[in-house]
Order: sequence, then C-alpha cells, then structure tokens
Amino acid sequence: MPRFFMDEGVLSGIIQITGRDAEHIKVLRLRPGETFTICDGRGTDYICRLLEKKGQGFEAEVIKTVSSEGEPTVNCTVYTAFPKGDKAETIIQKSVEHGAAKIVFFPSVRCVSRPDGKAVIKKLERWRKISEEAAKQSERGIIPEVDVLDSFEAAVAEASKAEMPLFFYEGDTDYSIKQALSSKSKYDTVSVVTGPEGGFEPTEVTKAREHGMLISGMGKRILRCETAPLCALAAVMFHTDNL
Amino acid sequence: MPRFFMDEGVLSGIIQITGRDAEHIKVLRLRPGETFTICDGRGTDYICRLLEKKGQGFEAEVIKTVSSEGEPTVNCTVYTAFPKGDKAETIIQKSVEHGAAKIVFFPSVRCVSRPDGKAVIKKLERWRKISEEAAKQSERGIIPEVDVLDSFEAAVAEASKAEMPLFFYEGDTDYSIKQALSSKSKYDTVSVVTGPEGGFEPTEVTKAREHGMLISGMGKRILRCETAPLCALAAVMFHTDNL
Repeated sequence: MPRFFMDEGVLSGIIQITGRDAEHIKVLRLRPGETFTICDGRGTDYICRLLEKKGQGFEAEVIKTVSSEGEPTVNCTVYTAFPKGDKAETIIQKSVEHGAAKIVFFPSVRCVSRPDGKAVIKKLERWRKISEEAAKQSERGIIPEVDVLDSFEAAVAEASKAEMPLFFYEGDTDYSIKQALSSKSKYDTVSVVTGPEGGFEPTEVTKAREHGMLISGMGKRILRCETAPLCALAAVMFHTDNL
Repeated sequence: MPRFFMDEGVLSGIIQITGRDAEHIKVLRLRPGETFTICDGRGTDYICRLLEKKGQGFEAEVIKTVSSEGEPTVNCTVYTAFPKGDKAETIIQKSVEHGAAKIVFFPSVRCVSRPDGKAVIKKLERWRKISEEAAKQSERGIIPEVDVLDSFEAAVAEASKAEMPLFFYEGDTDYSIKQALSSKSKYDTVSVVTGPEGGFEPTEVTKAREHGMLISGMGKRILRCETAPLCALAAVMFHTDNL
C-alpha cells in the first residue's frame, strides 16, 4: 500500500495532502476511494481513503489507526566511518530496510572522505531524503534519523551508551558477533560501529575498548565498509527475533 | 595480503604469473621478497614470495600452503529472480562477501528484465569477473559460480534439493527465517530463493511449496529485491556459526 509520512498534528478530520506527497499520489495514479497509509513517523499508521483533488493537492480521510508493523522491537543505531563516494547513500538506504533506528557518520583515522561545513549540510539534506524514501518503501514506522559527529571519540562515547555496544574490527577481537549478542540475555538498545575502507587503527580499537565497547568480528571473510553495517544489522535483527 | 586465484595444476615449483594477475601485481607495486596469496579456488591458500620480473610477468615460489579461512562451513546457494538494471552485480558482489557458494538467476512472472541468448552470455562473463574480484577482496577460498536457469520451475527444482530449502515471500508464510533455520538441527546445504522487484506470484509460491521448499518471511519490513538475498545470507551465516 502507498505510504507517506506526515506530522501527527495534521492527522485528524479531513487531511490536506500537498507538495511532494501530492506529486507522488499523481505518479501512482491513486483514485478517489482508494486507500493508502500515512504514518506519523512515531510508530502509528493512519489508514486513509483518498477523497478528491483540491487545488494542486488532494484531500483524504482517516479510516483507522494501527501500530506500524515495520518497527523492530530493538533500537539499533549504526555508526559508520565516512565512506568514499556514494556508499553512504547505500548504507542509509539498506540500513533503513534492515531496521536501523538511526544512522550516524563520523571521521576515523583512515577515512579518505571527511566532509565538513557546507558539504556536510548538503549531504545531510540528501541523506535524510534517502532515509525517508527507504522508510516509505520498507514500511517503517519512523523515518530513521541521519546525523554526523565530528570525531571518532564522540562516536564511541555515544555508541557505548547502548546496552549492547558492538565495535567491529578485522584484527584481534574479543568476541564473534554471535558471542557478543549472546553475552547478555536482554537488551533494548544496540549500537553497531563499523570502520572506513582501510579499517580502524589499533589505537582506535583501544579507545573503543576503554569506552566499554565489545570488540567483535564478523566471520573470516573481509567485508567491504558498506557491507559490514548491513551484515551486522541482519545479525542483530535475527538474534532479537526481528527477522 | 594481495590475493589471486590460479589453477592448482600450476601451483608447484616456480610459478609463472602472467596476464591480469601480473598487471595487478604491478598496480600493487609488489617487490621481490614480498609475500602474497594464491588460492587454488578449491579451499587451499598458497602463501607465495615474489621472485623476479620475467618478460611481461613475474615468477614466484610457494612458502607454505594453508586451508582458506574464508570458507563458511555451510554451502549456501542464492537463487534470485532477474532484477532490473545493475542490481545483479550488487547481489553477486555482496553475496560473495557474505559467503554464498553459488549465485543463480532465473526468470519469474513479474521480472521486468529477462536477458536471454547473447545478452546472457555477455552478462555471465561480466558477472563471473565480479564474483572473482569479490572473492579476492573478501578472501574466499573459492570463486563462487554464477549461473542462470531458463525457468522458475528449474530454479525451484534445483533449490529444493538443499537440506534447508528457503523460499522467501512477502505474503502469507509458513515460517520466519529464524523458525525455518531452527526447524532442523543439522544441515550442510542451504538454498535461498528470492523474488523480483514486484515479488513472487501466489502461483509460484504454490509451486515452490509443492517442491518441498519452506515458504519463509524475513521480518515485517519490505526488503528490496537486492537486499533480501543478502539479509537471508547474513541470517544463515549467523545461525550456522559462520559469523
């Protein structure tokens, strides 16, 4: 069913659909009487019926409200070192599909790309649109936030607050991802920290361990920087019964 | 460590490295005395030392042989309906990283793309190179085969021979992937069958069930056709202790 996100505040009585959402309804050739979903981005879906064209937009009415089924029971944030080229876009789109709650990029010693200032503002605008589109397509109940942090230290300081704080490294590790996820019986928040193309520096691993992160591996195969967060997310969702 | 694939037959005494592999050694600026790995594509790694330039190529000697660590203990083949555009390339590259043994494409009712004849031959050539490159990069012990089948029926007939034959569907399913993977205690072969952009037709699901495939879901989120096989592979590798 077509899916849009709108603020909860406008989701009562006759709903006015304008702008990009109205364009999308035209593209989909939805007709009066047909149903679609408007999600409030906070976990509730409003099943709506299209009424009629109104100026450049459309009117719709709410038939019923239900909990968004697409939200996993675990809150998992992905922290990824800035990758090269357009890999950040792939990571965002696929992380949203996999059920991430939030995606955060940060600089790391071996990062080739380190956007800052104006470049970051422009990228964030684009990245947030990608998250919204992926959330619509994959039927999420929220639009996962996309953000950047300005240092590795800030990333591990934040990531280490999760009840299951996972830091992925290709060198010597303390756990496999399966051992790490099995090391506690219950947790509601998970963080997944992955490195840039060249991997993390050993000094960064030491810092992460000092912050209490679980230094974990993901099998014997070398994963590309855009593959690692997705493989980790799939494992987290599988282990927590969200797959 | 740089990694190449060569036939077992040439891997004794002084090894001659020519063609694309020699070009790669030049690009990497490997010097005499430096070590690299030649894998026989059958699970054995030959740790080699570069000797000297010889004509357009190089000579090398074997220092020792070891089992390729990158091979998972489970043999998992991915069967995916032909996707649009260059998504097949993404699926191949990432499936190899995730540990797939083989990747097979097949036509399905809702496939928009159905390459045949010359187009398939050209695509297969390109796809196999992508598999080889991904196998080198991810340190696999084999180059996963890439193939096409000419019908949906052929795909489910072949896929259903696996000890754990998984068929993914977005509609009503008999199992979650976790339930399906937990429904037997031991298996060495797994197949993962995923659909095209528009999903499988219900008639196809019926046929798959008749072939004995386990009709399974992968959570409440709608995964894109290029995401589903990778999420399934990650779950298979996690469940079988290969992550």
